[in-house]
Order: sequence, then C-alpha cells, then structure tokens
Amino acid sequence: MQDLNARYVEAIDDDRLEEWPEFFRADGRYLVTTAENVSQGLPIGLMSANSRAMLRDRIKALRQANVYEAQRYRHILSTPRVTAENGELKARTSFLVARIMHTGETIVFATGCYRDRIVRDEDGVMFAEKTVILDSRQIDTLLAIPL
Amino acid sequence: MQDLNARYVEAIDDDRLEEWPEFFRADGRYLVTTAENVSQGLPIGLMSANSRAMLRDRIKALRQANVYEAQRYRHILSTPRVTAENGELKARTSFLVARIMHTGETIVFATGCYRDRIVRDEDGVMFAEKTVILDSRQIDTLLAIPL
Amino acid sequence: MQDLNARYVEAIDDDRLEEWPEFFRADGRYLVTTAENVSQGLPIGLMSANSRAMLRDRIKALRQANVYEAQRYRHILSTPRVTAENGELKARTSFLVARIMHTGETIVFATGCYRDRIVRDEDGVMFAEKTVILDSRQIDTLLAIPL
Repeated sequence: MQDLNARYVEAIDDDRLEEWPEFFRADGRYLVTTAENVSQGLPIGLMSANSRAMLRDRIKALRQANVYEAQRYRHILSTPRVTAENGELKARTSFLVARIMHTGETIVFATGCYRDRIVRDEDGVMFAEKTVILDSRQIDTLLAIPL
Repeated sequence: MQDLNARYVEAIDDDRLEEWPEFFRADGRYLVTTAENVSQGLPIGLMSANSRAMLRDRIKALRQANVYEAQRYRHILSTPRVTAENGELKARTSFLVARIMHTGETIVFATGCYRDRIVRDEDGVMFAEKTVILDSRQIDTLLAIPL
Repeated sequence: MQDLNARYVEAIDDDRLEEWPEFFRADGRYLVTTAENVSQGLPIGLMSANSRAMLRDRIKALRQANVYEAQRYRHILSTPRVTAENGELKARTSFLVARIMHTGETIVFATGCYRDRIVRDEDGVMFAEKTVILDSRQIDTLLAIPL
C-alpha cells in the first residue's frame, strides 16, 4: 500500500495529471494546509476538495490555464510511518518537491508532510483522505498544481 | 524497526524535541561528525553524548536559548541499508534536511548519513548508538539542533 | 532487492567508484538520458555503456582526470515502484543528488528517475539495465560522474 504514494507522485511528475483524481475514492477528500495552521489548530485547509469529481474539474481547469507545463517537478518521498486502524491505514510521509526550470536550474520548491487515510475497496487501494501540510507559509504558487 | 528513524525525524520536524532523547537507550550514544573526519580515520566526534540524560540536558538548554523556533526543518530519509549482527541491527540511512525560513524560502540545510545501532529491549526499539556523519565541514550552526 | 540501489548510491557517495561497475551484470547496460528525450520518444541515451568492462574503463578515466574529488555528492532515494516480470524485477526510483562544495555550500545538483531491470544470478542481485532519466536538459557536467 505504501506503493500508492510512489505511484501518486509519479503520475504528477510524469505530467499524467488526468490520472491524479483516480488515486482518490469517489468521495475522497484532498486538503492543502500549512504547518503553521495545523499547529494553531486551524481546521480549515487553504484548498480543499471533497470528491474525485472536484479533482477532475481542477485538472481540466489547470490544463486550460496551461500553467503546468513550463517546468518539471520531482517528488522525493521519505520513509513513511504507517499505522493500521479500523480497517484502514494511516500514513505520514514527508516529501520534498524539486522544481526544474527550462534553464536547467533546480530548486527546492516545497517541503511538507502527507497525512493520508488509505483504504482498499473493490476498485483497489486509494486515498479516502489526503492532507498536504506545507512547511512554508507562502503557498500561493503551490496551490496551482497537485501536490 | 526502520520505522524508528521515521519517528525520530518526525519528532524533530514537529518540534517535539523533548521526545528526542527517548529514542535512545539510557546508555545510548549520539555523535555528530563529518565525512572528512571519518575518511581521515579521526574517531572523535565534534559533538557527542553518552547517555539519554545528557541529551535531555541538551534539549533543556536549547529551549532556554530559544534558538530552535525561528525556522522549520524537514528531514527526508533515503532508502536504509540494514544488516543484522549479534542480536542488533546496523542501519545506514542517507538524509537531507531542508530549512524553511519565515519568509518561505527553503534551502538544503544539511546532508549526510546516519549510522545506527538499533536494539530492542523491554522499553521497545531504540538507538544504542547514532552517528551523524555530515557531508559539509561547516557545521557550526548544525550543532545547535538535533540532527 | 530494493537494497541494491541503496548500496549502489552509497558506493558513489563514499567515493568507492571502483565498486560501481560491479553492481552491473557482465553484459549490463547503463544509459543516461533526459526526461525531454524520453517524452519525445528518442531512444538514444546521451551516454551509454553496454558492458561492465566499459564501466570499469570509465572509472579509470575518471580517476586519471581526477575530476571527482573536488566535491562530495549525496543521493537521496524516494520510495521505489517495483514490479516482477519474467523472473526479473523492474524498478522505478526517483532520486535527488545534492552536491556539497568545499566551502560547505550545498545545492540540488540533479534530480531524475532510475528505471532498472534487476536480476539475480549466481553472482548475486545486480542490474541488467539501468536507465538514468534526468529532469534537467543541462547535463554536461552531470555526465562526468556516475549517477
């Protein structure tokens, strides 16, 4: 099941964004927030979606805006922490995203942690919930792409 | 057992530094050195502690000096190399630490390798010894925080 | 078997380059290319070797040119994706290479993905083929060292 995040970030890094919503259950939740918000107990994400359909809409909008293709991204996943609970898995996985510009310059674009609820149903292993907790407060540009 | 390092770096990145000494056995050793020192056969670390009690004192001093909270850290762990030997595990794990400033800027703060001796006793799985080998020679600022 | 890449990058990062060819089968292939080339369907790598003997020659040349020792490298491996097929394993592993200069400055030197065919024969587990797909197009300096 820990393979799920490896396949998830591979789809993003390979620009196969249309596959991105399919890693979520039909009623799957996707939230993006910051470590600062989490430490202050603020429950609301800065970006959230409550269904696979919303995620599909987001990718369509992203393709029309055409913002994604100007550069490449590379996700590096740290060792996950996985615990089983009530028939589902909870996983915490630190990540780093590098951004590779057309010039070849490579920077650390984002770091943070995935907190996932992972389930297995008839369609396979997928996210019931994925919360992306970003270390940086400056996440304007981060919200444009799937993380 | 490879979960141990994932939990260890999570405690650091979440600023739960008081938990840091508890990942070590009561007589656990913690050393910080550089790759240059290791390659020259210099056995002495630039910072070392020989007990959990020393690590606890260090965190207290760190909290009083209040140096830690100005920024965030994110550890990314590479695939570990684990070998079993005489009832304990030896693990080598490359790591990268990103530092996230208040401005949102993120840099590669440190890289290196953990060389660990990991034991299981009545209190659980913990470090009998952790040697942090830093790639950079400039480690003044690195010594201020747990690595 | 996923240990193979951990041992492989450790040999590079520890400057034990003479061990590098030994991770390949005698008729093992090593290719370096770019994500741009792969997405355009260009089959030819920018650097390729078709045998362990060629890799050994390359290390000899590298040692004579003495280019490698001016700085250190640190490979960080992401979670691999492994599939079994016809008695061999196929693995995809994202990686990040940090470069640590003598000044202590550390930068993200390269990112990309390994696509490996891994086999087990009488000599152990090794690469039948390793393709290094770099995210950046600017790979002149990248070709100098094993990746």
